[in-house]
Amino acid sequence: MTQLVASEKHLLGTKGMTAQEITSILDRAAYWEQYPVKLSNHLQGRFVANMFFENSTRTRFSFEVAEKRLGAEVLNFAAAVSSVQKGESIYDTVKTLESMGIDAGVIRMKPNGLLAELAQKIKVPLINAGDGNNEHPTQALLDLYTMRKQFGDLRGLNVSIIGDVRHSRVARSNLWALQAVGAKVSFCAPESMQAPELAAHAPYIKMDEAVKADVVMMLRVQLERHEESVFKSTEEYREAYGLTVKREATMASHAIIMHPAPINRDVEIDDVLVECGRSKIFEQMSHGVPIRMAVIERALN
Amino acid sequence: MTQLVASEKHLLGTKGMTAQEITSILDRAAYWEQYPVKLSNHLQGRFVANMFFENSTRTRFSFEVAEKRLGAEVLNFAAAVSSVQKGESIYDTVKTLESMGIDAGVIRMKPNGLLAELAQKIKVPLINAGDGNNEHPTQALLDLYTMRKQFGDLRGLNVSIIGDVRHSRVARSNLWALQAVGAKVSFCAPESMQAPELAAHAPYIKMDEAVKADVVMMLRVQLERHEESVFKSTEEYREAYGLTVKREATMASHAIIMHPAPINRDVEIDDVLVECGRSKIFEQMSHGVPIRMAVIERALN
Amino acid sequence: MTQLVASEKHLLGTKGMTAQEITSILDRAAYWEQYPVKLSNHLQGRFVANMFFENSTRTRFSFEVAEKRLGAEVLNFAAAVSSVQKGESIYDTVKTLESMGIDAGVIRMKPNGLLAELAQKIKVPLINAGDGNNEHPTQALLDLYTMRKQFGDLRGLNVSIIGDVRHSRVARSNLWALQAVGAKVSFCAPESMQAPELAAHAPYIKMDEAVKADVVMMLRVQLERHEESVFKSTEEYREAYGLTVKREATMASHAIIMHPAPINRDVEIDDVLVECGRSKIFEQMSHGVPIRMAVIERALN
Repeated sequence: MTQLVASEKHLLGTKGMTAQEITSILDRAAYWEQYPVKLSNHLQGRFVANMFFENSTRTRFSFEVAEKRLGAEVLNFAAAVSSVQKGESIYDTVKTLESMGIDAGVIRMKPNGLLAELAQKIKVPLINAGDGNNEHPTQALLDLYTMRKQFGDLRGLNVSIIGDVRHSRVARSNLWALQAVGAKVSFCAPESMQAPELAAHAPYIKMDEAVKADVVMMLRVQLERHEESVFKSTEEYREAYGLTVKREATMASHAIIMHPAPINRDVEIDDVLVECGRSKIFEQMSHGVPIRMAVIERALN
Repeated sequence: MTQLVASEKHLLGTKGMTAQEITSILDRAAYWEQYPVKLSNHLQGRFVANMFFENSTRTRFSFEVAEKRLGAEVLNFAAAVSSVQKGESIYDTVKTLESMGIDAGVIRMKPNGLLAELAQKIKVPLINAGDGNNEHPTQALLDLYTMRKQFGDLRGLNVSIIGDVRHSRVARSNLWALQAVGAKVSFCAPESMQAPELAAHAPYIKMDEAVKADVVMMLRVQLERHEESVFKSTEEYREAYGLTVKREATMASHAIIMHPAPINRDVEIDDVLVECGRSKIFEQMSHGVPIRMAVIERALN
Repeated sequence: MTQLVASEKHLLGTKGMTAQEITSILDRAAYWEQYPVKLSNHLQGRFVANMFFENSTRTRFSFEVAEKRLGAEVLNFAAAVSSVQKGESIYDTVKTLESMGIDAGVIRMKPNGLLAELAQKIKVPLINAGDGNNEHPTQALLDLYTMRKQFGDLRGLNVSIIGDVRHSRVARSNLWALQAVGAKVSFCAPESMQAPELAAHAPYIKMDEAVKADVVMMLRVQLERHEESVFKSTEEYREAYGLTVKREATMASHAIIMHPAPINRDVEIDDVLVECGRSKIFEQMSHGVPIRMAVIERALN
């Protein structure tokens, strides 16, 4: 996979971003979170297109709120793209929308590695809203924002990312971003859900140890993706890698629970923990808006 | 089914609403219907989310026109929800959108009874745009608005609701609202389409008598829903319970025809009657906008 | 098929439009293309509904950009309509949206001939965004705009339209519009893709001759539509009717390539030609916005 370097305008991934770049986005998000009114006119007369080649109403909604709060004109484009025509079709569509005069594009797509290529050919800034299992940078940024708000400083923070690391763009974007700001990332996953290419970047640790971190980040697990799964049922998965009430009791008193959502209740996390005191899950979603405001503003300024 | 009481902010159903509450919404709708310009700035900077977990482009469209005329920012969210995950998934989604900072939610969903539960947990006001076969309060309010505009006073008005009462949230919301303001409701339906739990509230009368009312409200019939239907064809249904030209000729000269749409022409109502002089069907749709403006404004003030 | 005459308000087709009418739209589009800011307030407080009964995210997107640049409120309505219920259902839906107070409707639909009928019954101006294989007037207007920008004058211009003429509303709308302004249209198509009813209006010429025109307009070909196709593969089609690099080399030095998109690369046009110097394909898309601004403004003034 090509290494994605975030240009000044594009936001393709957190890989290659500096601590300074990340911090400046988090700082600007803090500004927007405190902004006294819901509507600003910062981006009046600018057109932002949300181009979703893979379905995601939640992320699209979060971007749309952010764009509208900035006063931008929002255009939503959703199209399923078959795997056969994917590359050309996505390029032609994005080029078409660019021709119509949009000022920035938020883009989600299934194919891995296509985005970097696209960003070479497209003049308007592109913001990655999730591409394959590669990156989901705004998710990682809102996660870091949530952690910083909780702990003040991210340096030295212990973060465990638990579950289907292999298929997770959230895990990857968090890994690069967290390491850039000096946090320590560990993974915890059954072998079938480990990502071999990440082994050099972060250690895989056991579940008992993983839940001892400052931040316990659970990933959504989709057992149906794993054909030769060693887990016969979601219950079996929960027993081995779920954040159960029993395991939560062993967490440090200051530690927090995170999850990128949507949640499989009673699979990767017990139902009663979703909104427990140390869970920051809905706060994360709430932080998505100011983070995306900061990211869109950065793309257009 | 839990009785839904409309709180000051939510609008879950017409059941439990007082004549005064209903009248104040109708009065405010009259204000908006006469409003001199199409766009007001009453709700500038407020975000309203239309959350449709069951498909309905028409009702969503009507709400969207209402919201935009009030100057609100509109966010549309549509997601089919499978029956298995329905409860949790709807809650998590609505909670997610709430976390993103919406000020009110318009919601449509298939499950019965879930909305009251949801309203306990969600802080932003929710407006029911149709839930299962339980309630569709804004439809009933626009129906009452149409009747009041025609007859001046709703007290003592005879309203026949004809067709698939069992599956109709429109029938239920009209029943509660009409009785609250002193109108007299009768149902007319074949046995398989009667709602046993409503028998204590309104009488079932014969078709010949039903068409003699001041208001003849036809319901959309979906014969495919009735597996053991006594009707072999739509033609047979029309003969027994359709508003045919022949039956229309027996209506009182002052009486009007209503239908919540979409219409099955030549099934529950003859094609030529849809836009006849006494039909208020498209007027009803027109009244949907000021009614929804009044309801959204009420939720946000 | 009924002849569609563009009324003062509706834009149903280019058939019957005068050179003067067409020129005035092109002139106004030129004004909008040069407009110094992205957002005007020309149509503030006006509601435009994009009603798509046939899927088309690209054309809808172009209209939406145009409407928002004019300051109008935009409502999107998309609904697949089964062939059985199509006529009544489309009428009822459009009538419903009209009842809700829209000021103009942009409409796309599959059925041929229904639009003229609809325009008789609907009071708000309707703009055809493509109906069956009948007309797609805004596409033709943006095509003419592109040609005029390139050549200054359209009179006497030679335009070849190559490919699946039979199924193409783009071919028909271009034929009527180009002939109205004095250009000379020729078709080039295999017999199975010829439109017999157009034979009296424009000659069918051979491929070698067709590529010698001032404008070589390639149509999208969908081989799967042609059950008894003489082409066993897309490669065979390309050999016979595709604009290959070899054929492009025989084009006149001043000649341009056009295509309404979406493109089947390496079927009707070679991949490398899509963005070659003489290709105006993405410029066409860019011109769609000012053309649609002019057309919407004309409908609402």
